[in-house]
Amino acid sequence: MAAPDFAPWRMRAEAALERALPDPATAPRRLHAAMRHGVLNGGKRMRPLLVYATGTALGAREADLDAAAAAVELVHCYSLVHDDLPAMDDDDLRRGQPTVHVAFDEATAILAGDALQTLAFEALAAAPQAPAQRISMLAELARASGVAGMCGGQALDIDATGQAIALIELERLHALKTGALLRCAVRLGALAANATPAQAEQLDRYADALGLAYQVRDDLLDIEGDAATLGKTAGKDIAQDKATFPALLGVDASRARLEELSAVMRQALDALDAETGALHALARQVVERSH
Amino acid sequence: MAAPDFAPWRMRAEAALERALPDPATAPRRLHAAMRHGVLNGGKRMRPLLVYATGTALGAREADLDAAAAAVELVHCYSLVHDDLPAMDDDDLRRGQPTVHVAFDEATAILAGDALQTLAFEALAAAPQAPAQRISMLAELARASGVAGMCGGQALDIDATGQAIALIELERLHALKTGALLRCAVRLGALAANATPAQAEQLDRYADALGLAYQVRDDLLDIEGDAATLGKTAGKDIAQDKATFPALLGVDASRARLEELSAVMRQALDALDAETGALHALARQVVERSH
Repeated sequence: MAAPDFAPWRMRAEAALERALPDPATAPRRLHAAMRHGVLNGGKRMRPLLVYATGTALGAREADLDAAAAAVELVHCYSLVHDDLPAMDDDDLRRGQPTVHVAFDEATAILAGDALQTLAFEALAAAPQAPAQRISMLAELARASGVAGMCGGQALDIDATGQAIALIELERLHALKTGALLRCAVRLGALAANATPAQAEQLDRYADALGLAYQVRDDLLDIEGDAATLGKTAGKDIAQDKATFPALLGVDASRARLEELSAVMRQALDALDAETGALHALARQVVERSH
Repeated sequence: MAAPDFAPWRMRAEAALERALPDPATAPRRLHAAMRHGVLNGGKRMRPLLVYATGTALGAREADLDAAAAAVELVHCYSLVHDDLPAMDDDDLRRGQPTVHVAFDEATAILAGDALQTLAFEALAAAPQAPAQRISMLAELARASGVAGMCGGQALDIDATGQAIALIELERLHALKTGALLRCAVRLGALAANATPAQAEQLDRYADALGLAYQVRDDLLDIEGDAATLGKTAGKDIAQDKATFPALLGVDASRARLEELSAVMRQALDALDAETGALHALARQVVERSH
């Protein structure tokens, strides 16, 4: 099967983000420029692609998915801006470009991240879905971003650095830190398209496996990759003594875990009564990606 | 007229915040503890009081205002946690207690602020109002918190530090930085109570004047106060060469400006067909407060 061309959805996502972001020519310009730097940076837009792939698989129109696609990506981008700060991961480079606190300054990076989070909720509050549907989508985004999701996972990650950690804890950590927002992207697509409970259940299985697979692949790339391919500093997790799947399981068992997760995703999608070509292709991209 | 007793509304607000905040006994405990430290710190709860005073003046039940009261205070608290960071105002004390990054660490303070913002939207998404009303309230909170409100004002404040600034710019800065969220508290109360457009217009006049009065009084207190009364480091604005109303207008003219703003608030409330005793009393508190 030929891989679907995701370029049109990436362009839709870029356009939706561009519309949501504040005008760089209006005050406060430095804040607006920092926000744009943190978002319009050549990201892969995996979360928007999941929104479009899920929503259109269930019959939603692309135009009705733009707000959700932009919102989930804005949350992802705010988290990267804050994760890169000196007090957090202290990263100078992201996708080969200076991170926001390097290109601007630390105060502006903190503020830009804060404002990007706010913008995510503002964008989603203006989505074209009926008010009750929009409330469900807003509640889903908040839950996935907060202490029971991304922020909680980030906190567990900080707590675990330099500590011995069991596999089950590591899986839980990443289910929150990375998985929650990927899952949220799928759920936003499903909510926007009024998925049935049965559809939502299979999509949750798919999204849970996808989130974990994404992190296992990321950990493997950190060992295998180099700074040129990744656009960030390779081997950083090991230098910081962070718990990773290869460190805990070994490289071969991590690759085997990836294969298992691939199988779970395929089964979940096959059980879904919908056109799932794009969702299959995104699963393969996550498992096979080289950066 | 005897001043109304705000203790019962403060207790309601504390209880609503306590319900919204994550359990300190569950993981990630350090993050949960930091969030609670940043919120349950003896704050005056001016924004929740404004929600209750506005909403009940227009006939809403107190129980229907709890979510909005908690949400706007959570945004206020997240902004304080981030403003206190070393890269921002670098404050070690707030209300006589160590700030979050001092009591915990910088990474945890960044993350706690992030999670408190998320929690604000999560709490408001679960408010008891009808979905369309809740969407209006969520959109209002997002607008008031973001680049066109609080975050934008904070960015203008950073840009203005050490710069000459005109009075009109200083008023705009504070209309965003402090005023936007106070105004939002009034608007959330009005939206929760289904205010008429005429009522909303007078309440906006009241809220705009209140936000500015709050900042003029704050600037005057910074000159007059000492650390013991304020629970924070006095004279800090001058040490940091920040633009303030007394620096620009002089102390006497700043006091006169406060009196003018008081008159605007009284007129706006008198034009409102509602029981406005509590709103009048809050206006007096802002103008006359000594800490």
